[in-house]
Amino acid sequence: MIWTLAAGGLDPAAMTALLLSLAVLLGLARLLGEVATRFRQPAVLGEILAGILLGPTFFAAISPEAYAWLFPAEGPVRIGLDAFVVVSVCLLMVVAGLEVDLSSVWRQGKVAAFVSTTGVLIPFVLGAGLALLMPRALGMDPSAAPVPFALFVGIAMSITALPVIARILIDLNMLKSDLGMLIMSAAMVNDLGGWMGFALLLATIHGQGGDGLIVTLVGTLLFVGLALTAGRWLAHRSLPYIQAHSSWPGGVLGFVLTIALLASAFTEWLGIHAIFGAFIAGVAIGDSRHLRERTRETIHQFITNIFAPLFFASIGLRVNFVASFDLPLVLIVLVIAVVGKVVGCYLGAVWAGLSRKESWAVGFGMSARGAMEIILAQLALDAGLVTERLFVAIVVMALVTSLIAGPMMQKLLQRPIQRSLAELLSEKQILLNLQATTVRQAIAELAARAGTLLANLDVERIDREVWQREQIMSTGIGRGLAVPHARLPEIKKSTIVVGRSERGIDFDATDGKPARLIFLLLTPQDDQTSQIEMLRLIAVTFDSAETHQRALEAQSATEFLAALRVGHGESPHQV
Amino acid sequence: MIWTLAAGGLDPAAMTALLLSLAVLLGLARLLGEVATRFRQPAVLGEILAGILLGPTFFAAISPEAYAWLFPAEGPVRIGLDAFVVVSVCLLMVVAGLEVDLSSVWRQGKVAAFVSTTGVLIPFVLGAGLALLMPRALGMDPSAAPVPFALFVGIAMSITALPVIARILIDLNMLKSDLGMLIMSAAMVNDLGGWMGFALLLATIHGQGGDGLIVTLVGTLLFVGLALTAGRWLAHRSLPYIQAHSSWPGGVLGFVLTIALLASAFTEWLGIHAIFGAFIAGVAIGDSRHLRERTRETIHQFITNIFAPLFFASIGLRVNFVASFDLPLVLIVLVIAVVGKVVGCYLGAVWAGLSRKESWAVGFGMSARGAMEIILAQLALDAGLVTERLFVAIVVMALVTSLIAGPMMQKLLQRPIQRSLAELLSEKQILLNLQATTVRQAIAELAARAGTLLANLDVERIDREVWQREQIMSTGIGRGLAVPHARLPEIKKSTIVVGRSERGIDFDATDGKPARLIFLLLTPQDDQTSQIEMLRLIAVTFDSAETHQRALEAQSATEFLAALRVGHGESPHQV
Repeated sequence: MIWTLAAGGLDPAAMTALLLSLAVLLGLARLLGEVATRFRQPAVLGEILAGILLGPTFFAAISPEAYAWLFPAEGPVRIGLDAFVVVSVCLLMVVAGLEVDLSSVWRQGKVAAFVSTTGVLIPFVLGAGLALLMPRALGMDPSAAPVPFALFVGIAMSITALPVIARILIDLNMLKSDLGMLIMSAAMVNDLGGWMGFALLLATIHGQGGDGLIVTLVGTLLFVGLALTAGRWLAHRSLPYIQAHSSWPGGVLGFVLTIALLASAFTEWLGIHAIFGAFIAGVAIGDSRHLRERTRETIHQFITNIFAPLFFASIGLRVNFVASFDLPLVLIVLVIAVVGKVVGCYLGAVWAGLSRKESWAVGFGMSARGAMEIILAQLALDAGLVTERLFVAIVVMALVTSLIAGPMMQKLLQRPIQRSLAELLSEKQILLNLQATTVRQAIAELAARAGTLLANLDVERIDREVWQREQIMSTGIGRGLAVPHARLPEIKKSTIVVGRSERGIDFDATDGKPARLIFLLLTPQDDQTSQIEMLRLIAVTFDSAETHQRALEAQSATEFLAALRVGHGESPHQV
Repeated sequence: MIWTLAAGGLDPAAMTALLLSLAVLLGLARLLGEVATRFRQPAVLGEILAGILLGPTFFAAISPEAYAWLFPAEGPVRIGLDAFVVVSVCLLMVVAGLEVDLSSVWRQGKVAAFVSTTGVLIPFVLGAGLALLMPRALGMDPSAAPVPFALFVGIAMSITALPVIARILIDLNMLKSDLGMLIMSAAMVNDLGGWMGFALLLATIHGQGGDGLIVTLVGTLLFVGLALTAGRWLAHRSLPYIQAHSSWPGGVLGFVLTIALLASAFTEWLGIHAIFGAFIAGVAIGDSRHLRERTRETIHQFITNIFAPLFFASIGLRVNFVASFDLPLVLIVLVIAVVGKVVGCYLGAVWAGLSRKESWAVGFGMSARGAMEIILAQLALDAGLVTERLFVAIVVMALVTSLIAGPMMQKLLQRPIQRSLAELLSEKQILLNLQATTVRQAIAELAARAGTLLANLDVERIDREVWQREQIMSTGIGRGLAVPHARLPEIKKSTIVVGRSERGIDFDATDGKPARLIFLLLTPQDDQTSQIEMLRLIAVTFDSAETHQRALEAQSATEFLAALRVGHGESPHQV
């Protein structure tokens, strides 16, 4: 009898600990990830914090026995957790690879090439140069070899974080703009180059001793070359066949993950790391226009919401973030990282003909390091390239650069942040049982609630302004929706109050339907765009019949809010 | 430095083997699962076959060294695989639990109660009784305790397979019919009862020795009781809150899996098995109408397409299916299983007032054992309750009952099987470049292709019949679609040929749009329903704008087929 759980595998005690540790890691990471997202910060920040709380920094200090039981340093539970963490980071790299669109890189041409070249070279030279000149200040282990260390620091400084950048561009509604496409393309070239460089560095370290090195180097180059040409072509040809002749999206899902796991096993065997195979497989497959949006989305949802939190929480488990926190080192790393990248990209962008403001924006956008840098740092830690102090400094740098990239770009380009209707509402702004039976009464009732929310405005004033506006032209927009509104000089921030009427109120809409959902929109006098933006959000949100129905049936303000949260394929997960 | 891969965890060689073994298991299982699905058989059949090919039955016999490297009996690779298999089966049970809808069980009331009571009791008594009377014939290990063995056989005979039944009902378009709802409700009660019984049996085995037993028994009952009352209420209350205040569907996804893993860890600790916790957690959460269809679907897609194949392939790895195949034992188990279940359910259904035909149909439907029985058998094998011979017999019985359930129900109820448009087409039936510019030419061109596909009919005849029908009334149905058709006494099976016209052909549709996709429908003379069904399929399929667009843009017949494969939330995966 082989393969029974009793012999050789996981015994019940280990299984209990493994399931519990996965549950705790996933649960806390998701929770803190959501908290970070609420404050419009990358989820990865909260996820790593969850790991820090559960790791040697905090939980192990409080209860060493419980920690050793849940996250042991060796034995079956540890191996089981490791297996999940490794597969998680590989899957995460598949998603990162899927986002690389080689054909759009070609289309961007010169500008992207400029930005990515200077954006990689300048931080690389700065990082590697300083690491050679003053290795101690950068936290090199005295016994380590200086050249691989310097090369690693250079690569670490030149990497960027495609998913973070994509998320920022989505937030600023710029993903499909010229500038957005340029930034994305440059970041793709940047990432591809950075990871290739790191793969070669790992190859030289692992393959030391003649023949091994050559096998690894040649193998790596051959693998990437073949995967991105023949592999890419094959994936493109296979996808329609798989889609035509297998269940959907299950067939494609299984295909993508099988190929990614195979490629991971291959690169791990080569002596570089499993994640390279996963990443390259993602790039090769993701390029095909035959990969449907829905399939991408299913992969994306599951991996970013389940596997990514597991991996990032495991980062916090690795080291003691307090004991290994070295402020001077953190600051040095941060300064080199920001200066090198921002200046490098700025120069490339200016030379390529972009305006100065745009060029700075490109620089700050590309300086976001996010998850990619953290994965790199973890591999370097495992390979013995960096000390724990430098590891912590790089993780902090990755988080800080990701935090500042969005606000800096927004400030430089002066673009409003895109929000969803649900984000603009809270339970207090929702009145589920309007008593009103006429337009006049409805406005009064909504104005009364708005008055309690806006301290510096009295109810009368709001009511009067909105009613005056309503008399000029009715605001029923059909399909049971109405949007009475006013611009007021007294308020600084737009406010919505929504009321639901059981019977409906006749807002004189062109389709003749009484309004059952009435949105009172109050915007600052001098703000031209907010009102239009809110109208657009209302229209888009209630375009979904399911959302509309659920909003009408919601039994509490919370349920009403829940009804409005419908994804359109873009995940708010900022890795 | 704790937690680095170098110390205590997975070394590169183990990681390579683990990633490769996962890739091979997943890839082959998905592939054979798809092949099974093509023949309208449960995917689990192909998935188990993949495991048998990769396991001791075949692969180990051919290349023992490679087998020992890829699927070792102990060590880190084995533990890593075990960890994935355990988590996979837990997640699979979450999905099974999500499908149990307690509130619909209440609504079904008396009939469901009758069917599930007799449907559980009669096979249980039959199985347990025979196991007590002739334990040797049922393959009991002579050294085993007879009472637990008999109880297990009874439970194994009384379990049913909710997902298989749901799939059959979907295929027959009966899921939402009265009879369908009744069968589903009875199967839910059945499963809940069966699993509870097995949990208690495991509890008595593991807790032997006084106090332990009481703790486990009381713990199990308390857990189930609390989870299905307070837990269910809490989940229902939390879901809108989570949905309102977290990213969607990521927040809910993380919540569901965290709760399921916590519950799994708890029941594993209790001394029953992790899967019970996952199942009960699924039942508690799945009952809430706040769990959105899209969230369910994402969970379902990923788990049935990735984790389920991994688990079922691992079943094949467990034992040598050829060496342990004992034909008399397989036949005995099969006969008891089918007779007990079919007669039991038939009696309950007849007493509750159903017609005889319907009652037999209920019996055969409920006799499908599928994945649930296989999970049960695997636990029993691990617990030492059954020998490998009986394990193999039960697995075969589970597969055979699942295979016959669909055809038997279809025959008894005489319902057509629902197919998708893509399933009715192959590349040969697709003409991407119609040369025709008139209706007359288009019909001639499509009829010519139909003639090559239908051996016993000549082209002239098809052409004439369709053209005659077309002259009575035009078949342009708008939105660029046309459906010329004819009923022919010579053909036995409906046939479609589809042609795409670059310019469009005027089929005199009410919306005035020229037809770009023209479906020639040929159906048997005496078959009243096929034509209507095909018209419905065409309308439903092209209701999706994405599908329509992709079909118009497809560059090959394969791409055209791929475009038609759009899921509407129902997975063809028959676990």
